Amino acid sequence: METSVFHLQYAIDTFYFLICGALVMWMAAGFAMLESGLVRSKNTTEILTKNVALYAIACTMYLVCGYAIMYGGNAFLAGMGSVDVDGVLGSFAERGDFTGGSIYSGASDFFFQVVFVATAMSIVSGAVAERMKLWAFLIFAVALTGFIYPMEGAWTWGGASVFGMYSLGELGFSDFAGSGIVHMAGAAAALAGVILLGARKGKYGPNGEIRAFPGANLPLATLGTFILWMGWFGFNGGSVLKLGDVASAHSVAMVFLNTNAAAAGGAIAALITARLMFGKADLTMLLNGALAGLVVITAEPSTPSALQALIFGALGGVLVVFSIVFFDKIRVDDPVGAISVHGVCGLLGLLLVPVTNGGASFGGQIVGALTIFIWVFVTSLIVWGILKAVMGIRVSEEDEYEGVDLSECGMEAYPEFVSAK
Amino acid sequence: METSVFHLQYAIDTFYFLICGALVMWMAAGFAMLESGLVRSKNTTEILTKNVALYAIACTMYLVCGYAIMYGGNAFLAGMGSVDVDGVLGSFAERGDFTGGSIYSGASDFFFQVVFVATAMSIVSGAVAERMKLWAFLIFAVALTGFIYPMEGAWTWGGASVFGMYSLGELGFSDFAGSGIVHMAGAAAALAGVILLGARKGKYGPNGEIRAFPGANLPLATLGTFILWMGWFGFNGGSVLKLGDVASAHSVAMVFLNTNAAAAGGAIAALITARLMFGKADLTMLLNGALAGLVVITAEPSTPSALQALIFGALGGVLVVFSIVFFDKIRVDDPVGAISVHGVCGLLGLLLVPVTNGGASFGGQIVGALTIFIWVFVTSLIVWGILKAVMGIRVSEEDEYEGVDLSECGMEAYPEFVSAK
Amino acid sequence: METSVFHLQYAIDTFYFLICGALVMWMAAGFAMLESGLVRSKNTTEILTKNVALYAIACTMYLVCGYAIMYGGNAFLAGMGSVDVDGVLGSFAERGDFTGGSIYSGASDFFFQVVFVATAMSIVSGAVAERMKLWAFLIFAVALTGFIYPMEGAWTWGGASVFGMYSLGELGFSDFAGSGIVHMAGAAAALAGVILLGARKGKYGPNGEIRAFPGANLPLATLGTFILWMGWFGFNGGSVLKLGDVASAHSVAMVFLNTNAAAAGGAIAALITARLMFGKADLTMLLNGALAGLVVITAEPSTPSALQALIFGALGGVLVVFSIVFFDKIRVDDPVGAISVHGVCGLLGLLLVPVTNGGASFGGQIVGALTIFIWVFVTSLIVWGILKAVMGIRVSEEDEYEGVDLSECGMEAYPEFVSAK
Repeated sequence: METSVFHLQYAIDTFYFLICGALVMWMAAGFAMLESGLVRSKNTTEILTKNVALYAIACTMYLVCGYAIMYGGNAFLAGMGSVDVDGVLGSFAERGDFTGGSIYSGASDFFFQVVFVATAMSIVSGAVAERMKLWAFLIFAVALTGFIYPMEGAWTWGGASVFGMYSLGELGFSDFAGSGIVHMAGAAAALAGVILLGARKGKYGPNGEIRAFPGANLPLATLGTFILWMGWFGFNGGSVLKLGDVASAHSVAMVFLNTNAAAAGGAIAALITARLMFGKADLTMLLNGALAGLVVITAEPSTPSALQALIFGALGGVLVVFSIVFFDKIRVDDPVGAISVHGVCGLLGLLLVPVTNGGASFGGQIVGALTIFIWVFVTSLIVWGILKAVMGIRVSEEDEYEGVDLSECGMEAYPEFVSAK
Repeated sequence: METSVFHLQYAIDTFYFLICGALVMWMAAGFAMLESGLVRSKNTTEILTKNVALYAIACTMYLVCGYAIMYGGNAFLAGMGSVDVDGVLGSFAERGDFTGGSIYSGASDFFFQVVFVATAMSIVSGAVAERMKLWAFLIFAVALTGFIYPMEGAWTWGGASVFGMYSLGELGFSDFAGSGIVHMAGAAAALAGVILLGARKGKYGPNGEIRAFPGANLPLATLGTFILWMGWFGFNGGSVLKLGDVASAHSVAMVFLNTNAAAAGGAIAALITARLMFGKADLTMLLNGALAGLVVITAEPSTPSALQALIFGALGGVLVVFSIVFFDKIRVDDPVGAISVHGVCGLLGLLLVPVTNGGASFGGQIVGALTIFIWVFVTSLIVWGILKAVMGIRVSEEDEYEGVDLSECGMEAYPEFVSAK
Repeated sequence: METSVFHLQYAIDTFYFLICGALVMWMAAGFAMLESGLVRSKNTTEILTKNVALYAIACTMYLVCGYAIMYGGNAFLAGMGSVDVDGVLGSFAERGDFTGGSIYSGASDFFFQVVFVATAMSIVSGAVAERMKLWAFLIFAVALTGFIYPMEGAWTWGGASVFGMYSLGELGFSDFAGSGIVHMAGAAAALAGVILLGARKGKYGPNGEIRAFPGANLPLATLGTFILWMGWFGFNGGSVLKLGDVASAHSVAMVFLNTNAAAAGGAIAALITARLMFGKADLTMLLNGALAGLVVITAEPSTPSALQALIFGALGGVLVVFSIVFFDKIRVDDPVGAISVHGVCGLLGLLLVPVTNGGASFGGQIVGALTIFIWVFVTSLIVWGILKAVMGIRVSEEDEYEGVDLSECGMEAYPEFVSAK
């Protein structure tokens, strides 16, 4: 009978990882819809292509080497195919304490981890949209998902020391589901790319004008946001890493609740902020506010009360509006606001962790944030730089004017609809 | 070992709530897509804004006061953040009977409940589309989700008596997942708004003409319907409130099956009805038919056989076509048919409960339906009325003509696509 | 206490089926979006109508007779409504061996099976798009989902012998989740329809020209692909048929992982193949490549390593590009490439099973593939033929020119957007 309980315990924790992983995979669709709704129609096919391809590349690279770099040894290729049932049951029996760490299928863990890599890379595609060469982007995706992300992942969730110098865990760094490790990291890679790439033609005028390039399809952008909101339950909820005892299950429930509350807070705060600043109910700011709330709570969704989560999310919702305005002022051209949403709000999330989680320290959070940012930014700058030197990363002026859909993909996203542009 | 089983029991019932809740949250995206597909392109950004904002408001208000009104005491703010593991295990041990009521994380229950509130409010946005002021709508959302809905929720699922006068439960009222409590309630609020608001300009001609204002994007409307169909498995399936024993698990399975069968029946019946009446395979009626079937079965998805569910759904599918035609005849202008789908079919669902559920009485269903309808309709009328007097609820004629997207949100949903209108 | 474990075991396996079933149901939305994105705008409403209606018909027919034909006796109508709790607990106790076959709610099994039928039928709608009569299609859906599919399902998953002549199981035929039984079967029915129907007007010129009819809305097609990708986790993952012990749970995890890896491999391989052949990053080929990888792995997602899954998927991704080109060369007009994706790659999937699954034989796979193909193709040809003789299956030339949306459904999908065509 004891054995039966072990079987169920293993099954429920494995299933929990798989369902959460499927929700995170779904976020790939969310990014694809969000970004394809926010770019102009002439650049839509290309951003869709990028989003599907980067997800496939992330899954492949993490399988081939990323997981091994991040967690040491290629657990995946080595022994994941089969399971030693007696060994598993023995581990349960040995442990005695039922409420200890989770025992589950390594394959479910890999599946859950692999979709995180894809998320990090998805963040990049929006920021460099509408002027980057497709194949340069895809080669960068290979580097980020196969090496850059796994390295900083190893220093944080992997528990390795940073180049043998210091341990982020020992410094009190804590990032529950990846405000920094995933979101800020993606934004850092994006920022490096945007700087080398430059702004879209015509975005900034000679006399300081900032021209709006409105997204071509706002229902898609809204759908993308809802998809991300839903998928985030898996992103944060699965990061508890265990479901099968009372304390863990309750923690998963709090994480779902707080994730939702933070998104709600971010949405409302951004809506009001934008109303006060621009006089209108700005839908794109509303969407970015919800996402900002989600990014902020990701660093620690398990310890705040729901009211705290709501407030933390609202802080993100206010911040993201100012951040988007700020980056436009300094002429960092980010068509979807990804650097603000994932980078600036990811940093805010990290800094808020010690407010509710006594195990984290402000010092540790700052060192961790700097470590992640510097590593990802510098290595990305190098990779983007090499790509720029070797093959170029920006499409020709003519292709940019005509839209990258025709030059890169040979097909329009909406070939029948007459465009006003 | 016994303790281990208690842990798993708690975990599985908590997880079940969370997954069902995530599916219901997903319905918010369904309403957003359905409604944005059925309005004209010039009013699309605004309806998207409404849908995202109302979901955020519903989550916030239910957290702040709604849950407390509905279930008494602010369980959420008081003690939801932590769990007394020993207390939980003790409760299981005390009970002895494993198959009794569910014991699960209060946070998961809150999460499941909160997404229901948002559903009720989502129903309203479609009916008042294309001519209501955005901020008046959002203020109404505060009232409905923070007070009006929680009050009738308290009288039904909360078990409280209606103003100390009578108990709906004692009268034999039963509404499994909310055909009345959620769907008809939302429709009642919508009806009150539509009456005070009036029809869209040009909808009804001076000689009794009824002009069709076709939806601008039917793939979105279809997507929205599929999303709602999927989310409904969580809506109804989670309302069994327990998964972790044989009878409950089987009940959840029957609910999934019947929910699907009713939607299928509704879709087919509406398709055929519309074909006979209009001579065409009317996609919007097909979609409304599926939704009608879903609303009908929601009042009792656990006791019918699948064949009964199919038939009940089909009744809804026929009824919804006639209802939509009827409301247009009496010049109640409901752009998406929400009052017919959720109100009329919600009532039908309530009245069908006693056919398969011996615990419900026709008398109880009628009293319950009247109680919910009168309460929500009258209080909504008051709130809409106050809003109308204080700030106005209808946009100017010029803004309506130009589309509310520009006046309310300052941006078009499809800025590049040349419109035929 | 033993009883408690039985309860949980039943609950977890039932829930697993339901969640996987909900994911497969979601694939109906995926097909609807994929196909509505790949047809021209004038045929969009009709393909949406077909997709919603066929899903409803599939659910109805499988309930009325399909399940009974496939698994013998109408288990569903007979006793599914209630559960014999003591009987269930007794079955567990008798068995003794906890890790034996799954015991779960028959209703959850029905729900999981019914969504598979709909998938098979969804494959047909894309291939016959843009020129088939709606009602002929829906009548065919009745035949396929109520009889043709259940018959071959009975010979394979149902374990019945083929007309009393031979048993596919004994011949070593194995098709884990339905590369052949579902996907190739759907493609065979589609091929029969396409042959009788002929190509779309203007698709093939008199001098061998092949004209591209670009899809009207590529974001929708991409969304549909992501939906299918996500839903496939349920499609393959649920086909393990049991979750609740260590070996089964691990198997489910491997299936999730391999399903994802195969899709990634297919996407990348098709992207590169198309780039080499056409010089562009062809988004539609990328999408078809991902789907091809999914179809290939469906025949056996549990025994390959993740690297093998990646390679198998990549084979599908290469094959699908050549197959689509080939069918266009021989003037089999399949607007969405369904015959290539589901038929050709379904066959490849069947043939790859013996590479990793020692229980399957190449001979058995070939006999099984032939049995399924011949049965479905011939019976479909007969049904399509009768429909052609009795009511016609092709719309008039004028209706085809104007688009079937107006003639069949009486409404445009995008009534406001000015079309370039």
